[in-house]
Amino acid sequence: MAPIRVVIEDIEPQVDGGSAAVRRVSGEEVKVEVRIFTDGHDQIDGALLFRFAKSNAWQTTPLLPLGNDLWQARFTVRELGQYEYTVCAWVDAARSWQRDFKKRFAAAQETEVDFVLGAQHAVALALRAPKVDARRLTEWANALTDAKRGREERAALAASAILSDYAHRYPDPQLVLRHEPPLKVEVERERARFSTWYELFPRSTSAMPGVHGTFADCEARLAYVAAMGFDVLYLPPIHPIGVTERKGPNNHIAAAADDVGSPWAIGADAGGHKAVHPQLGTLDDFRRLLTRTEELGMEIALDLAFQCSPDHPYVHEHPEWFLHRPDGSIQYAENPPKKYQDIYPFNFASDAWRELWVELKSIVEYWMAEGVRIFRVDNPHTKPFAFWEWLIAEVRQTRPDVIFLAEAFTRPAAMYRLAKLGFGQSYNYFAWRNTKSELSEYFTELTTAPLSEFFRPNLWPNTPDILTEYLQFGGRAAFMIRLVLAATLGASYGIYGPAFELMEHNAREPGSEEYLDSEKYQLRHWNLERPDSLCDFIARVNGIRREHAPLQTNSDLKFHRIDNDSLLAYSKTNAERSEALLIVVNLDPQHLQAGWVELDLRAIDVVAEQSFQVHDLLSGTRYLWQGARNYVALDPQHAPGHIFRIRHHVRSERDFDYFT
Amino acid sequence: MAPIRVVIEDIEPQVDGGSAAVRRVSGEEVKVEVRIFTDGHDQIDGALLFRFAKSNAWQTTPLLPLGNDLWQARFTVRELGQYEYTVCAWVDAARSWQRDFKKRFAAAQETEVDFVLGAQHAVALALRAPKVDARRLTEWANALTDAKRGREERAALAASAILSDYAHRYPDPQLVLRHEPPLKVEVERERARFSTWYELFPRSTSAMPGVHGTFADCEARLAYVAAMGFDVLYLPPIHPIGVTERKGPNNHIAAAADDVGSPWAIGADAGGHKAVHPQLGTLDDFRRLLTRTEELGMEIALDLAFQCSPDHPYVHEHPEWFLHRPDGSIQYAENPPKKYQDIYPFNFASDAWRELWVELKSIVEYWMAEGVRIFRVDNPHTKPFAFWEWLIAEVRQTRPDVIFLAEAFTRPAAMYRLAKLGFGQSYNYFAWRNTKSELSEYFTELTTAPLSEFFRPNLWPNTPDILTEYLQFGGRAAFMIRLVLAATLGASYGIYGPAFELMEHNAREPGSEEYLDSEKYQLRHWNLERPDSLCDFIARVNGIRREHAPLQTNSDLKFHRIDNDSLLAYSKTNAERSEALLIVVNLDPQHLQAGWVELDLRAIDVVAEQSFQVHDLLSGTRYLWQGARNYVALDPQHAPGHIFRIRHHVRSERDFDYFT
Repeated sequence: MAPIRVVIEDIEPQVDGGSAAVRRVSGEEVKVEVRIFTDGHDQIDGALLFRFAKSNAWQTTPLLPLGNDLWQARFTVRELGQYEYTVCAWVDAARSWQRDFKKRFAAAQETEVDFVLGAQHAVALALRAPKVDARRLTEWANALTDAKRGREERAALAASAILSDYAHRYPDPQLVLRHEPPLKVEVERERARFSTWYELFPRSTSAMPGVHGTFADCEARLAYVAAMGFDVLYLPPIHPIGVTERKGPNNHIAAAADDVGSPWAIGADAGGHKAVHPQLGTLDDFRRLLTRTEELGMEIALDLAFQCSPDHPYVHEHPEWFLHRPDGSIQYAENPPKKYQDIYPFNFASDAWRELWVELKSIVEYWMAEGVRIFRVDNPHTKPFAFWEWLIAEVRQTRPDVIFLAEAFTRPAAMYRLAKLGFGQSYNYFAWRNTKSELSEYFTELTTAPLSEFFRPNLWPNTPDILTEYLQFGGRAAFMIRLVLAATLGASYGIYGPAFELMEHNAREPGSEEYLDSEKYQLRHWNLERPDSLCDFIARVNGIRREHAPLQTNSDLKFHRIDNDSLLAYSKTNAERSEALLIVVNLDPQHLQAGWVELDLRAIDVVAEQSFQVHDLLSGTRYLWQGARNYVALDPQHAPGHIFRIRHHVRSERDFDYFT
Repeated sequence: MAPIRVVIEDIEPQVDGGSAAVRRVSGEEVKVEVRIFTDGHDQIDGALLFRFAKSNAWQTTPLLPLGNDLWQARFTVRELGQYEYTVCAWVDAARSWQRDFKKRFAAAQETEVDFVLGAQHAVALALRAPKVDARRLTEWANALTDAKRGREERAALAASAILSDYAHRYPDPQLVLRHEPPLKVEVERERARFSTWYELFPRSTSAMPGVHGTFADCEARLAYVAAMGFDVLYLPPIHPIGVTERKGPNNHIAAAADDVGSPWAIGADAGGHKAVHPQLGTLDDFRRLLTRTEELGMEIALDLAFQCSPDHPYVHEHPEWFLHRPDGSIQYAENPPKKYQDIYPFNFASDAWRELWVELKSIVEYWMAEGVRIFRVDNPHTKPFAFWEWLIAEVRQTRPDVIFLAEAFTRPAAMYRLAKLGFGQSYNYFAWRNTKSELSEYFTELTTAPLSEFFRPNLWPNTPDILTEYLQFGGRAAFMIRLVLAATLGASYGIYGPAFELMEHNAREPGSEEYLDSEKYQLRHWNLERPDSLCDFIARVNGIRREHAPLQTNSDLKFHRIDNDSLLAYSKTNAERSEALLIVVNLDPQHLQAGWVELDLRAIDVVAEQSFQVHDLLSGTRYLWQGARNYVALDPQHAPGHIFRIRHHVRSERDFDYFT
């Protein structure tokens, strides 16, 4: 046989030429587009092949032409784990014949020989078809060349779908090109896409000021967190804390005897990464906390901080897992000239790397066995990429419902690499994107391919490490603005509380993003009853997120023009486009800002002539708008923004009053 | 050893993930950019590797960091044929140590142990270094740990380039990641990039009206063509023309006895693709024409039209190379309902495809043996892609100076595919891009990656098949405008003459792009002495192309804003940026158009405050401009456009007068 004539190019979606997987959650679609074409004028045909990777059987669905050699097909992923997909294409001689036949017949040309050719195509198909279909094809071929039948009748037969349908089903395998190797989709559960996180330090949950909080205190706090509408409760490390070189309040070098230390200095006499800190309670206490969290519709995310305090049992049990200096000391963490003597990093390149990797995996498995399904990974970019790729693949092999969030505040290439190799969610630069151009550029990048195909941002306006200038100096409005932005720009977002809802804004020193009296180094007691607390506002925003599908996805984010640089306007729709939201935020926490928004009406599915209602889900107010240009004014002392639901079919001003 | 830690991503340039080659001409640079990074904070290093594919030895050049994990290196290609390049990268422990040492020393920290560590790095390097370098490294290590030396002296040693230089030269091979397989560069001679084509029908070159022209007549025409500044003379097929089903003037079905037929209906009793048409002369006549053309600094491009007239010797010698219909007839070319009974296409998928392919290759080799080095391929998109890929690779294996131009007026995917698999130049959509937005969009696409890396457009304002509406109705100015556009937007362009310079503009019928009394079917006699001929204007434009490097490349094309949609402004510079041209064209052949151009001054290397001279190379006029906004007025009856050379260093109006 001569070489295959059809060409397959530019399959989308595709990450790094197929070496990394596209990410989806269960129930989502993969819309595949591909350029297929051949030389000359022959008809071509093609199919999308897909399968859950653990199953053997490929499912197929026809590719449909979009024009200009671009073809499309879709499939929906359901199972958690890996799917594969690829494309095949072929030159279709039978359909080429059919197309040409119709033109010849329409031009009243002689077609007797063409009937014979058509019959030959059918006979060739019949040889590849199962019995029943083969019989139908043979009958069709006989009828086509039956001189007793009228020319019109045979022409109608020739043009019928019988031939083209079978041609699609039984292409000549020698003409079929298949793209190899297949491309991959990594499928996670829905929470990998849509989640609302709350971080708290369990040791700061005691009702009594100055008393070390426990898992039981934490349990008592759950209802408060759930009432605000969060669904993931993230706890900093809950393990025994080292004593040697322990840091005091505000990261002072010398800790006093009763200083509690940093939870990230993991390991002490009481144990390491598989133990719980005695002051928090017992493993049973933790188990009860887990259960109670689930009962409230939330789940717990644990912190994976793969590093040790000098007192960690690993340090004497496995000295080979650490780097030793020529003077015999163990290499502590450093960012010269800064020294972190309370932290020993693992040496991932030691000769005993295999044993180390296996042990670290066993830590994850230990907490998985306790029922934990979400891990927030501390500084993954300071451990080898190959380690994470291996660890996450191993875990997801047996438990594909486990989600990993990468805390990699580093340069984009490394941040994105971690997402490619397995992290289902990622911290990102949101905290430092404040202006209209910063936000619109960054979120356009995040929500369009290639990034949108594998990188799921989790937006945090604050963390225990990050108190931005904007929050330090913007007052209450700044916190509300950043919350609305996080909650509506990202399908996943989180806050570090109660610092956030209580608007904690004092930095350790000028120019620092560290909190004064940070919980990282000391207990804090929070007055949750403060009348200015943002907890009701947060509950309202999270309620809107739960009720409105566009806020549960990062697809179809579209920025709209607005003639005031302090106002940001963007719309979101859900995949089915059953609903559209328009969000307008005043980025200036100090002043009222007003302007004219110029809507891209197609993005929100509004017909140009039609008037439509915008219903602010935050305030409950409704406005009747018409056309692209509409006026917005936002006073940050009253409202940080609008979260408008677009309501169509408002036909007259009179209807407006009756509209609910 | 633990897995390699460094990551290599996004190597550019790259075509289709490396499956196709990047195209360059001899003497050009390949600027390679790549993202390399690792986990953590270690220093990394990397190198670009390249080689002429036929040589065994790789050459290396260091990658230099551009910031944000992007690194760059360049190499220049000289040999014709294929080059390979790739990138390797590694974590550099020695330089990491050196960087950290400097910080520790600057912070006045204890460094005695660090000296020992540095010495260990040097000893490890010495084990991989040749003797001389190993000795220097050992000496350096000894000095570093020599307690008799002062701390300052040893610190200076520690920071010296000795260690970093050797670290770059002798990386630990176990840590080196190398991108595989290497990427490819296809290197052609300069004319593949910069060429100026003239197409003529030899049979229309007789001095006597009504007499069939010959190679000898053609020879007499050479000086005329050379004087206009062309360097490629492209001849439609010069082979014997079929008699059966021959077409008459204006493509009439029935030819009269003395009708000359279409040169693309190849093959008759006198021979096929390896013979010359007896009415044109002998093979010796053709050889003389070749020689004479070369003497004038031009070369001949032959037409490769792989199809046969029914009288071609192949038809009876190799009936197996054609498709036979059930009634025993050979399948002629068709585009139903249109029939081309005078043309038999080859059946590239016949069982005898291998023999057919080899024979077709022998046709190319036959004319190569006569000295032909450029082939214009007729309708390559109607033959299998695999055939061209094989044919061109085979030819270039022995004669990498051969250039193929693809005449594939088809959809973009197929057009671009042909360039990827070997065609060095391509016809394109230029003829139908007339408006400012059409031209600026299309040429921005053509001159930026990925297209610019493999697709070299050859711009034809007309061909024997294409007489655009713009030329039919735009008068003399239209021809001048399209010539200036072709000659300045493309490093390669061509015209079909003398139809072009004599402004032949009558279509066969309304709505048709076919010429009335087309030379494709009949002899024409052209009056080259007509006073309105554009030949002097063309000579002027081609002269400018020869003298100004920016017009010899497609790189750095930049469109500038101008507040009149009938005016198009664009600049070009050469790779070295030693010269910048600004071209302004009036796209309206009927009316004077004026407007303000708003220059992107960086694109033409002008400093904002500086005044500069624009020197119109077409008219010789000079203007003193300042800043971005400048006024242009163009009357198409006098000048289709300006080709401004930007002249800097005009410091005052006074200087202006003295400037030459």
